[in-house]
Amino acid sequence: MQKTQKAGQATKMTKEMQQCLEACLTCHNMCEQAMTDCLQKGGGQAEMQVMRAIMDCSEMTRTCADMMMRRSPMMAEMCAMCARACDMCAEACMRMPEAPHLAECADSCRRCAEMCRAMAGAAA
Amino acid sequence: MQKTQKAGQATKMTKEMQQCLEACLTCHNMCEQAMTDCLQKGGGQAEMQVMRAIMDCSEMTRTCADMMMRRSPMMAEMCAMCARACDMCAEACMRMPEAPHLAECADSCRRCAEMCRAMAGAAA
Amino acid sequence: MQKTQKAGQATKMTKEMQQCLEACLTCHNMCEQAMTDCLQKGGGQAEMQVMRAIMDCSEMTRTCADMMMRRSPMMAEMCAMCARACDMCAEACMRMPEAPHLAECADSCRRCAEMCRAMAGAAA
Amino acid sequence: MQKTQKAGQATKMTKEMQQCLEACLTCHNMCEQAMTDCLQKGGGQAEMQVMRAIMDCSEMTRTCADMMMRRSPMMAEMCAMCARACDMCAEACMRMPEAPHLAECADSCRRCAEMCRAMAGAAA
Repeated sequence: MQKTQKAGQATKMTKEMQQCLEACLTCHNMCEQAMTDCLQKGGGQAEMQVMRAIMDCSEMTRTCADMMMRRSPMMAEMCAMCARACDMCAEACMRMPEAPHLAECADSCRRCAEMCRAMAGAAA
Repeated sequence: MQKTQKAGQATKMTKEMQQCLEACLTCHNMCEQAMTDCLQKGGGQAEMQVMRAIMDCSEMTRTCADMMMRRSPMMAEMCAMCARACDMCAEACMRMPEAPHLAECADSCRRCAEMCRAMAGAAA
Repeated sequence: MQKTQKAGQATKMTKEMQQCLEACLTCHNMCEQAMTDCLQKGGGQAEMQVMRAIMDCSEMTRTCADMMMRRSPMMAEMCAMCARACDMCAEACMRMPEAPHLAECADSCRRCAEMCRAMAGAAA
Repeated sequence: MQKTQKAGQATKMTKEMQQCLEACLTCHNMCEQAMTDCLQKGGGQAEMQVMRAIMDCSEMTRTCADMMMRRSPMMAEMCAMCARACDMCAEACMRMPEAPHLAECADSCRRCAEMCRAMAGAAA
């Protein structure tokens, strides 16, 4: 299992990695905006649970993006976890699709989940 | 104003710095908990504005703590900004003191603001 | 005004959770300090790899602490991942135990890994 | 389904804000990559100081981007502080322009500083 790449040296990003990074940042941005919309609906148990899913997804996509940027050795594992956070957030957002940006947020979560899962597989 | 400390070397934390760091971490913790309580009240314009103040304070206290941990050259400036975020959060929390942890959160914000302002003055 | 535990309501932290949170914050603090020491040794491939392990551990402990503070549903999964980051960091730090804080950092990593693994098991 | 702007509702991003957000994310990405290069050069006092400037800039651009995403009331103040972090980082990176990505990083810092300063003025 020879490693030709020099340890620690910043490798060039593959196209897949670049796309995954962009999907994470887009999803993170959508989550931050969706929080505001969720807050406005807010109050009930349902909104609470959606809000929690968005908060986790927002933090996971941000952390995942950072780890890709610095080519962390834990990148694949983080991508897999990020994909799960995105799945849960997409599912939660679809429970209140009438709120302004939640359907949009769900879309970006699904795309990000797909990219992260591919990245997790490729990097593993 | 001679500097004997070698550039870049991790200086020992003063007692004041240690207390300020702890105040930031406590305040950050309280903010994260207060968010949940605020969400449960949630829905109206008032709750939205409190939530925004808590989110900012949570992020500022976390970032400020990190910068103290690594003795960032921007530490004093960050402490000053963090103190302002704490002031705003304390003021916002007191607008709904009936919510479970908001009065407690306001207390930790006030203490953190005080510590940060002292640190900002000392380090400047 | 009796309070029964409602979904989404901030649950009181168990003693184990409180200890795990503190271990994460201590470890995060040690990592931020260890980075400085590692930088001073720096330059070679070895230092690079230690630095990367510390950066990951620092980010994972910070994120894990935040997720505990807000009782995230992904907390158990994050604790498990955090434990692995701590393992890797402890192992990396022991490769250059002569650097000022790296042995200390390794100690706090080991303790944090243990706490996180217990929390991951308990919360799962 | 007419929407009038309500307090707290996510306002549409202006073109300037969108550009500033993108400049922050680009700069953050460059900083994360520059850290690796700086580490490889690493070891001396000079590298230490460059590394510290990059770490601060990386954190400030990330935090600033997040605050724009959620239209924080402290956005203008954060943009002003971020601009100063970018200035310092650009200046630090130019002290070792022979390292692979540091000149590039300085470029993205300068652009980000300019955008942030404009945003700080506009939002103030």
